[in-house]
Amino acid sequence: MRLPGPLTLIPIEGIPEVTAGDVLAELIVASAREQGTPCEDGDCIVVTQKVVSKVEGRVVELDPTDLAARRRLVEAESVRVVRRRGDLLITETPHGFVCANAGVDLSNVEAGTAALLPVDADRSAKRVRDGIRAHAGVEVAVIVTDTFGRAWRIGLTDVAIGVSGIAAVVDLRGQSDALGRELLVSEVAVADEVASAAELVMGKAAGVPVAIARGLDPSFFRESSVRELVRPPAEDLFR
Amino acid sequence: MRLPGPLTLIPIEGIPEVTAGDVLAELIVASAREQGTPCEDGDCIVVTQKVVSKVEGRVVELDPTDLAARRRLVEAESVRVVRRRGDLLITETPHGFVCANAGVDLSNVEAGTAALLPVDADRSAKRVRDGIRAHAGVEVAVIVTDTFGRAWRIGLTDVAIGVSGIAAVVDLRGQSDALGRELLVSEVAVADEVASAAELVMGKAAGVPVAIARGLDPSFFRESSVRELVRPPAEDLFR
Repeated sequence: MRLPGPLTLIPIEGIPEVTAGDVLAELIVASAREQGTPCEDGDCIVVTQKVVSKVEGRVVELDPTDLAARRRLVEAESVRVVRRRGDLLITETPHGFVCANAGVDLSNVEAGTAALLPVDADRSAKRVRDGIRAHAGVEVAVIVTDTFGRAWRIGLTDVAIGVSGIAAVVDLRGQSDALGRELLVSEVAVADEVASAAELVMGKAAGVPVAIARGLDPSFFRESSVRELVRPPAEDLFR
Repeated sequence: MRLPGPLTLIPIEGIPEVTAGDVLAELIVASAREQGTPCEDGDCIVVTQKVVSKVEGRVVELDPTDLAARRRLVEAESVRVVRRRGDLLITETPHGFVCANAGVDLSNVEAGTAALLPVDADRSAKRVRDGIRAHAGVEVAVIVTDTFGRAWRIGLTDVAIGVSGIAAVVDLRGQSDALGRELLVSEVAVADEVASAAELVMGKAAGVPVAIARGLDPSFFRESSVRELVRPPAEDLFR
């Protein structure tokens, strides 16, 4: 049974524009300190894909008016086209994510460039986590997030594309509900929920690429992989 | 542009088991006061579907071992079967939600009963909001949430099924990103993100049916409807 307690989402401001080779963990530790909310043991640090892709050099040149080039890039970043309508491609990425345009993103990057998804965002998350441990001496979890659309529902939400030190999915099956009956369906995508919570303090326009989630249930913290969140195509009724 | 600031999710404990006719707003105001976190102007109160359905009498008798009766109930609560596999039905409800078993739920209800979705959870949310205004003299927003699965991704997340006083979707199109370029895709499903954030402090097993989201961007607060979140079937590539 989870013990309820307050959860606080703290945006980390003041992180400068990053480029390939920058060490995110250093920037996060310094900016969090500077604004008076240093990283603490048990925090989960939420980092948007955009800054991760930039420091990892996952940015390519792309003329945004060249739709054919854009389509080729999306197809190169995909293993399968799931749906197509006009210019919109819903594709499956090598990671198993299903999203618009393979996550290729033209916003919040330099004009004439596009950001690609990190090759392995679990590894990206681990790098940030290890760096925060090294620079601040605290043990945190890290989630790398991106903004995806959904089937059936309007609007985007942030979801996890990489995790380190926190469960992607918490399986409550076998536990009892408040009335003592066994919970039948209870795999909770906590990493996606944390991603969405953090988005609320980062926003798309404000340019805040990192937030701290403080006060998460300690039982969420374990080694994990974002692969826990990927539904195998054979079990997916909508692919 | 959104102004970042901390966001706190506060679970409200001590809300008793409810039955048809109970006034949720009274219970929320009293329990929040009792634990030292009274409702404040600008809070968003997140209430799970289960307690809303109970106070609204949306509970029916159902023998959980009678699969045929269960299927008939699910079909009666649906306008369309979207996918079927074994005992699992993914259906569209009269509200336009696509979810497992039309939201008919056997957990956290008395044995031999099932909870149905509220008929109009926007109205449910408004009733709680009006009640909190009357009982506590504060202006809050309210989101009614339920736990839905997703296409493509493992695990459940909480989403909004009713809203009052808060945007279901915030449209940032036309705003500029941090580098001054126009955001192309930026309809953010903030009510779903708040629902997911609140789930993190409520849990499935702990029996905490209400949480306060405190510190949301004031620009989110406006009259709205959960219908903003329902993708019209004709525009949906996955129905």
